[in-house]
Amino acid sequence: MNSHITEQLRPLFQPESVAVIGASNNPAKWGFGVFNDLMVKGFGGKLYPVTRSEKEVTGVTAYGNVKDIPDPVDLAIIVIPAQYVVEAMKDCVQKGVRAAVIISAGFAEVGGQGKELQNEVTRIAREGGIRFVGPNCFGIVNTGANLSSMGLLSPYSMPRVPKGPIGIISQSGNAGGFVLQLGYQRGLGFSKFVSTGNEADLHFEDYFEYLSNDPETKVIVGYLEGLREGRRFFEVAKQTTTKKPVVMLKVGRTEAGSKAAHSHTGSLVGSESSYEAAFRQAGVIMVDEFEDLLDVAVSVIHQPIPKGNRIGVVTVAGGFGVMAVDWCEKRSLSLSQLTPETIQKLDTWLPAHWSRSNPVDLVGTLEKSYGCIGTVLKDENVDAVLAISSLGFPVGAGLEGYPVEFRERAQAYAQQMRHVELTQGVAGLLERIKRYQKPVIAGVGGSPPGTEESEAVTALRENGVVIYPMAERAVKVLSYMVQYGQYLERAD
Amino acid sequence: MNSHITEQLRPLFQPESVAVIGASNNPAKWGFGVFNDLMVKGFGGKLYPVTRSEKEVTGVTAYGNVKDIPDPVDLAIIVIPAQYVVEAMKDCVQKGVRAAVIISAGFAEVGGQGKELQNEVTRIAREGGIRFVGPNCFGIVNTGANLSSMGLLSPYSMPRVPKGPIGIISQSGNAGGFVLQLGYQRGLGFSKFVSTGNEADLHFEDYFEYLSNDPETKVIVGYLEGLREGRRFFEVAKQTTTKKPVVMLKVGRTEAGSKAAHSHTGSLVGSESSYEAAFRQAGVIMVDEFEDLLDVAVSVIHQPIPKGNRIGVVTVAGGFGVMAVDWCEKRSLSLSQLTPETIQKLDTWLPAHWSRSNPVDLVGTLEKSYGCIGTVLKDENVDAVLAISSLGFPVGAGLEGYPVEFRERAQAYAQQMRHVELTQGVAGLLERIKRYQKPVIAGVGGSPPGTEESEAVTALRENGVVIYPMAERAVKVLSYMVQYGQYLERAD
Repeated sequence: MNSHITEQLRPLFQPESVAVIGASNNPAKWGFGVFNDLMVKGFGGKLYPVTRSEKEVTGVTAYGNVKDIPDPVDLAIIVIPAQYVVEAMKDCVQKGVRAAVIISAGFAEVGGQGKELQNEVTRIAREGGIRFVGPNCFGIVNTGANLSSMGLLSPYSMPRVPKGPIGIISQSGNAGGFVLQLGYQRGLGFSKFVSTGNEADLHFEDYFEYLSNDPETKVIVGYLEGLREGRRFFEVAKQTTTKKPVVMLKVGRTEAGSKAAHSHTGSLVGSESSYEAAFRQAGVIMVDEFEDLLDVAVSVIHQPIPKGNRIGVVTVAGGFGVMAVDWCEKRSLSLSQLTPETIQKLDTWLPAHWSRSNPVDLVGTLEKSYGCIGTVLKDENVDAVLAISSLGFPVGAGLEGYPVEFRERAQAYAQQMRHVELTQGVAGLLERIKRYQKPVIAGVGGSPPGTEESEAVTALRENGVVIYPMAERAVKVLSYMVQYGQYLERAD
Repeated sequence: MNSHITEQLRPLFQPESVAVIGASNNPAKWGFGVFNDLMVKGFGGKLYPVTRSEKEVTGVTAYGNVKDIPDPVDLAIIVIPAQYVVEAMKDCVQKGVRAAVIISAGFAEVGGQGKELQNEVTRIAREGGIRFVGPNCFGIVNTGANLSSMGLLSPYSMPRVPKGPIGIISQSGNAGGFVLQLGYQRGLGFSKFVSTGNEADLHFEDYFEYLSNDPETKVIVGYLEGLREGRRFFEVAKQTTTKKPVVMLKVGRTEAGSKAAHSHTGSLVGSESSYEAAFRQAGVIMVDEFEDLLDVAVSVIHQPIPKGNRIGVVTVAGGFGVMAVDWCEKRSLSLSQLTPETIQKLDTWLPAHWSRSNPVDLVGTLEKSYGCIGTVLKDENVDAVLAISSLGFPVGAGLEGYPVEFRERAQAYAQQMRHVELTQGVAGLLERIKRYQKPVIAGVGGSPPGTEESEAVTALRENGVVIYPMAERAVKVLSYMVQYGQYLERAD
């Protein structure tokens, strides 16, 4: 692993000047959204619309050809029909453009002539020293530079992609865009984003190596249909995962899915088992479902990685405890045998008839939950705590239809419980997570959709203690963290 | 199956008068919430607070003993500490009360003396002809009578449990309450709800038989730890499932989970495989995860049940198509081979380079999606359609931070797309679902959290075409529907 690729991709992610070839005043055209998106979101460099048919684009002087731009151009974002891209790439080479994003579709993915067009564009770019993203993609985002080629009117547009530690590489523009959108809704932040498209020039592996060297990226999240340079990927992965977690969703894992993946982006799809084995050996966290990507990413960067698979369960609701135990067992997590000291300590808080074993059912003693979770976390037989319905008390929600006096009483009670959380709960719990270096993952509760998030839930979330609406998701996240922890122990 | 149990449970679900034993003016007591909840939510019958320590409860004259109430009492809801319940039950018998709900905890679930107390209460009730729910539960809801014992300040309180076709029986009060809350948030409606508690008298099987005969209940949803009368359950189930779908989450399925379930409500838990086999034979839809319960319930009552497992996938995004194919294969759904007529028809709408196979990737042609879905639905080789990111266009969301002129343009575009959906899309699709008797299940898109639901999404949702945020969930629901359809074919 060297920093060669970092140098090569600098004009792509950190250009000082960008030309949008195909910029337009017509809102129905992709070139309208791409150009205006850069304008609106405060890209700090120079910005040039290139179009043959207009004199200016939303008030900015347009150029008929990228070659007419008087100043140097680092990056060209190309959004014109496929048949004009060969000419445009020639112009870019002559202009000395250093990198390009080809958003346009109609290349190898449509077969026949499209494939030839793609080969021709690639040949010209390679000869001219231009590295490029795509074609047939949404392109890139670098939040650090307020740079995005996603387009103002794309289904995944948002006021601004929030800055943060998550780097995304996606072999599907829609899947990648959807991850950004989900993250935005969850208040998460991103460093870089790439929708790789047909990968005619730059490959998934190039971006992967780039992000593994990128100091702003603390976790790499990938949507993968197939690798083109498998060996290279695994070499880089092995050197990355001990320092920076890598979370991947590999699709096209079944025979039918693999066929569909090939027709989607023409990627070569290896056998399911070969990927699984290689990912495991390289410490890549290979998730099963789409929503796992962000769930796992958030937890592995904000919380300690568990040293083993022994889980302490703390729940306000017996039924949820039972379910949690089922899911733990299904996912090869084991239930901790609590020490007598822990039981003794819990005895001082809980009613006499509590179960005195794991799962710790608080039998309704909500106000003691933070203390109990902390106590279980401290137990030497516990590697991680699963908190079910025992963090971020959802009391006082959904009372809109009540008469004022009842609502006020309920809200006063909710206020009191929230006060308990904030004064006695959250800070202490976060401190213990750090002190014992063990994670707490939570399920059920928090702020139901449509209600305002409480300060306690916000404080927990911002420190990576996410309260998942379903306990299954919390158990799933925990199981991935445990697997990753086991890899780190072995790799040590 | 007879209507015996319907008669027996009439005073429980349709009482003309209710006494709350343990009603209180103190908001910290459960008896405050239970009594006021009934007051606030418009229970139409007579309502009597019973308490030794107060003369009136929130303005209503209180009685020191249920026996002091001058009029007949159908139902007693008991919320006093366990040690006083024996006396209270004796009073109820003397008063001629016909049914009871014992919310109080501290009985068999705590062992020892609690178990003796429970036996004593049960003996007294049986001798006195009182059938009762619980103890150690949230009790019941009958939306048709505005009757609920859930309590105003319970974590699952809501302005009013919405009326509708879903009946719930839960061996965990919290799990059941959480289902109600999720349903409320999703705009779903319920007929009856029972939190069964320790089942000292009335069993899960009694409520199950009651709901199978209840005309207001169109689907029975159950959270089950263990059956007490297995044979009876399966007899009733066999006669029910061909007319009324039954969706169950069976927990305590692993060894550890089974142990936890026993300590939770003392239920007897059979082996995993015995339940699975019996459920399958009786046509019970046995789901794996908590959120499946409502997902499946909504779809089986509002949409046609597929006649086979051949799925047509229509997607706006290639990557989502690939994922969908993976999940379909994992869940034993097969991809339809589309007929030449279907391909020909799609040719007239889609760009020349579309894949001409299943999954049907609309390659961005969003405005044709309803027509394409309808065409695929009509195909004789298709039993159901999975619509990924192709219904309920989420365009124009998340533009809050944009300058006004861009936002207005984007909103105009969104408005236009919504107009397309409403005028050319939704009604036609719903008509075709009826005509061909095949379901459409959707994933990805719709209205992102925090945005207003579009009229199209509302119209789809109200007709049972739910757009799940994740495509995995849609595939999962479809697979349960296919299994149920296969059962119905066999049982025919």
